Amino acid sequence: MENKVSKSDRTRQFIIETSSGIFNTKGFAGTSMTDLTEATGLTKGSIYGNFSNKEEVALAVFDHNHEKVNKLVSRKMDQAQTCYDKLMVYVRVYDQYTRSGFPQGGCPILNTAVESDDTNSLLKDRAAKAVNRWKKRIVDLLAAGIENGEFKADFDQSQMALSIIALIEGGMMISRVTNSQVNLDKVLKTVEGLLNGVKA
Amino acid sequence: MENKVSKSDRTRQFIIETSSGIFNTKGFAGTSMTDLTEATGLTKGSIYGNFSNKEEVALAVFDHNHEKVNKLVSRKMDQAQTCYDKLMVYVRVYDQYTRSGFPQGGCPILNTAVESDDTNSLLKDRAAKAVNRWKKRIVDLLAAGIENGEFKADFDQSQMALSIIALIEGGMMISRVTNSQVNLDKVLKTVEGLLNGVKA
Repeated sequence: MENKVSKSDRTRQFIIETSSGIFNTKGFAGTSMTDLTEATGLTKGSIYGNFSNKEEVALAVFDHNHEKVNKLVSRKMDQAQTCYDKLMVYVRVYDQYTRSGFPQGGCPILNTAVESDDTNSLLKDRAAKAVNRWKKRIVDLLAAGIENGEFKADFDQSQMALSIIALIEGGMMISRVTNSQVNLDKVLKTVEGLLNGVKA
Repeated sequence: MENKVSKSDRTRQFIIETSSGIFNTKGFAGTSMTDLTEATGLTKGSIYGNFSNKEEVALAVFDHNHEKVNKLVSRKMDQAQTCYDKLMVYVRVYDQYTRSGFPQGGCPILNTAVESDDTNSLLKDRAAKAVNRWKKRIVDLLAAGIENGEFKADFDQSQMALSIIALIEGGMMISRVTNSQVNLDKVLKTVEGLLNGVKA
């Protein structure tokens, strides 16, 4: 019986899941309490019974959407053998971002970072931590690849990690605003080129 | 007397300039009419006398902020001699984005694109056109550089242009959300590396 999920936990999870696409599409400022009551069919009182304010919903939604992308990435990484192939998982996952599995509204890190950088310190902090963890994950894979002889050792791994993230996120921005998957494909080809350039 | 600016034009310009930092910081959804009346000291009636709605102010503000960045870039490009140096102007201008001259709130293209891609077709269209013009400008400089022998001819100029934009915009996002100028510097080093890689 330990795994029994309380009614309150279920309601909380239902609110998070139902509003995850709304926040990621309309942004924090653009999402109103009315959006949340309409989407969930719950009263304001019921939502406030589970979250102290809209920001708390937004933070939980960010974690939910970010976790969704992380799971997609992890699942594919577990199947990849080499460090190079594991790093290329980012290219493959983001290349397919318009297809199923990716949060509605695009990359939660990009959306949250750009909106919150001047306005909301808690959301900004969440997005910053996500970027830093992502960077660390890439740096670790590069280090493991240098260790096992896949990669050369004479490059700045931190620069490479940040550039891969910048290309993916900048490419997503370009692709979404110009409605062109080809634009993202081209930018992701550059990620592949950077990784090929450090192969041993 | 042809250059006489009407009182209405001056008020319009005053509203645009005064609210340019607000929209670029808080976003379209996050900026209220009250923000505009408070910042300008004008009544709602006065603002509506010059713009039919908030969206019309936001569009004029986007043009204003985008023009500000373009002028910064153009001024430096006029001083550069080679196509390589002209392309490197983007690196230098964005590297100094925290200093004077750059619109408050960061890059208007990034901010507007990310917020509007799912929500506002007019602002989205403005940001998309800005990206496409930027891409064309880079492609033209690359083509001129190939023509005059500065660059090799065997690379995808469209891919290079989109990757430079993605690195700059993605680097700005990372740098702003992590409060680290060093992170932007590293990403911009990759832009330099990509351009060095196609030198003849």
